[in-house]
Amino acid sequence: MTTRKLTDPSYADALDHATDLGATHERFLLPPGRIYLDGNSLGALPAGVPERVARAIRHEWGDGLIGSWLDAGWAGLADGVAAKLAPLLGVDPADIQLGDSTSVTLFKTLYAACRRRPDRRTILVDPTTFPTDGYVARGVADALGLELRWSEPGDPAAALDEHVAVLLVNHVDFRTGALLDLRETARAAHAAGALLLADICHSAGSVPMTLLDDDVDLAVGCTYKYLNGGPGAPAFGWVTPRLHAGLTHPIPGWWGHAEPFAMSLEYQPAAGAARMASGTPPVIALTALDAALDAFAGVEPAALRARSLSLTDYFIALVDDQCGTSVEVVTPRDGHRRGSQVSLRHPAAYGVVQALIARGVVGDFRAPDIARFGFAALYLSHRDVLAAVEELAAVLRTDEFAHPRFAVLQAIT
Amino acid sequence: MTTRKLTDPSYADALDHATDLGATHERFLLPPGRIYLDGNSLGALPAGVPERVARAIRHEWGDGLIGSWLDAGWAGLADGVAAKLAPLLGVDPADIQLGDSTSVTLFKTLYAACRRRPDRRTILVDPTTFPTDGYVARGVADALGLELRWSEPGDPAAALDEHVAVLLVNHVDFRTGALLDLRETARAAHAAGALLLADICHSAGSVPMTLLDDDVDLAVGCTYKYLNGGPGAPAFGWVTPRLHAGLTHPIPGWWGHAEPFAMSLEYQPAAGAARMASGTPPVIALTALDAALDAFAGVEPAALRARSLSLTDYFIALVDDQCGTSVEVVTPRDGHRRGSQVSLRHPAAYGVVQALIARGVVGDFRAPDIARFGFAALYLSHRDVLAAVEELAAVLRTDEFAHPRFAVLQAIT
Repeated sequence: MTTRKLTDPSYADALDHATDLGATHERFLLPPGRIYLDGNSLGALPAGVPERVARAIRHEWGDGLIGSWLDAGWAGLADGVAAKLAPLLGVDPADIQLGDSTSVTLFKTLYAACRRRPDRRTILVDPTTFPTDGYVARGVADALGLELRWSEPGDPAAALDEHVAVLLVNHVDFRTGALLDLRETARAAHAAGALLLADICHSAGSVPMTLLDDDVDLAVGCTYKYLNGGPGAPAFGWVTPRLHAGLTHPIPGWWGHAEPFAMSLEYQPAAGAARMASGTPPVIALTALDAALDAFAGVEPAALRARSLSLTDYFIALVDDQCGTSVEVVTPRDGHRRGSQVSLRHPAAYGVVQALIARGVVGDFRAPDIARFGFAALYLSHRDVLAAVEELAAVLRTDEFAHPRFAVLQAIT
Repeated sequence: MTTRKLTDPSYADALDHATDLGATHERFLLPPGRIYLDGNSLGALPAGVPERVARAIRHEWGDGLIGSWLDAGWAGLADGVAAKLAPLLGVDPADIQLGDSTSVTLFKTLYAACRRRPDRRTILVDPTTFPTDGYVARGVADALGLELRWSEPGDPAAALDEHVAVLLVNHVDFRTGALLDLRETARAAHAAGALLLADICHSAGSVPMTLLDDDVDLAVGCTYKYLNGGPGAPAFGWVTPRLHAGLTHPIPGWWGHAEPFAMSLEYQPAAGAARMASGTPPVIALTALDAALDAFAGVEPAALRARSLSLTDYFIALVDDQCGTSVEVVTPRDGHRRGSQVSLRHPAAYGVVQALIARGVVGDFRAPDIARFGFAALYLSHRDVLAAVEELAAVLRTDEFAHPRFAVLQAIT
């Protein structure tokens, strides 16, 4: 009877109803005939973006030209974006800085953090980190003459000691989808006298946060995943107000100057997190992001999280039910320890993902054996989840994943 | 008779005819009723951009979703842009890296340059530099424990000595419009054992370059001025092939990795200048830039320069003729020493610029007393120049610039 119930469309509809966000899927332009479970890599297109960007290009840039820095509000565009982001992160918008890539933002933020612990010589990183974080940490360590230390996988807090200046963690593990307890990690870092920098790329927009209350020190996030800002959209950095005084980083550009338009030869940092800015803001990209974030309007963070958990719970239950032991659920089954992604292990995971894409279900692959499925609560339904697992079960049942045409490797984070 | 001739529209038309680029102004969407002489700050909108960006958003992002990294060529987008830029710079496209802001690109490039001269402790900068360059140079100097030394204004080569690792110069002075001889400066830098890094923000797209032949070592440029890439468009960096081996910078992100999709924990730099990349490329902004650069299609760099010089020559001649001694031409009258901008000094320059804007002639102001006028040869005619100077002469004649409504300070670079 359980089997029947789980796979009954009316069961899916009941779950939808119980976690209703108000038809937010209508705020997205989704291609017909596909179930998109890769919003953890590149979010779907919010419906308001095309028209808003077209207007910015045609009227603000084309007609308004240079005057649009003031007339169209380009100079304050990032502030507007920060105001929309802040409630999802549990922070003050004034403490958010936007505009560079995630890598560059991480570099500046990690560098600034290390300089706040000048008597310490170690950056501590979990080796399960998204690889770029490790590269950037190495770059900062080399630049500052510090040591980069790798913790045991999955247990960075255990490696904390009196040498650690900054502990760099990923809020959600990009491979497994496991969620770290930031409050607990911050407490452990602070007990050791270290600062905590959280990479929230794979959680921002899907896992509501209380960064300030959790006493996290700094955070860096990507906006093109669950925040749906578009391919290569600008990243954001956040610095807790307690650390603002004396905050310095090595790319002091005119946009982080106290008086950007004074064109003075000496740099005077802007107040607060605004000093983390460097160059001219990317107006077109910020405009797209600003419009994209309107898809979150009126959505309670807790309700978003509840629907995300319901979608991933349902996916896991269906996989257990429909796929048996042919795949292993790598993601924690305890919702409190899970982001908004479910990862499955299969020896031919690449072929599984490709076969699913051919069937209209888009997930992605991470070497060597992980198939990832991201669940963006704003635009996915429980019926989507049901249909996706039906296709997955069919792929596994038919050995379709072993077909030669699914044998070429490709993957984009 | 000379006066008559200069201000005769048929004279302007004859100059246009003599420097014809093939009606390239039709490749831009210019607002009616305005003469835009601020393309040195923000270039006008190329006609191909709106449709191309709309397609990228609606179809590549919206329909293609994550698959567009390969299917729509996003992963190679920067390479296509580099191929269009390279002929304007006199370099190989493979040696160009794109994607970050100008400040960030300058930081990485200057840092990498300093590391190629590890036995030297000085970064030499001309104090007439665009201020951000000075801020970033200070940031690099602090990060590497080097000295930032200011030369005498306008004469950096004279301050070269055996301590200088890198000489950072601006190809065109953003205030005066004066053009530096890069070949001669490179020779001087190399004679002192230093590297030359040229900021070509105010020349790229208006002054054709032969960076490789001139033996310049590194260059950084902006794409939203004469290259018309749009507000906050991504910058580019160039590194001469001779310096590629062992080139390192402190923001090694996944996009500069030899195998970006391998997601390996250890960083392996990509070959050549590609290693200068850090984060995910800004796809929407690069798409706009790619479309924008099509406005240069088929235009010979030398012909572009000839028209630019003709426009600025004509502007200067008209100012001399129409404005008498009420303004001072700050820009060199020798075309070989001038970019594509003419700066005028006037004690009420801010009011002059504002009064001109009210009359439909858009220039800009730089403190304390400079009115700047940029001449984008692709979309301006000699009739535009004639009309602009007629308005300028009227503003100066009527003391319109002293009106209180033109008294609020604003300026954007």
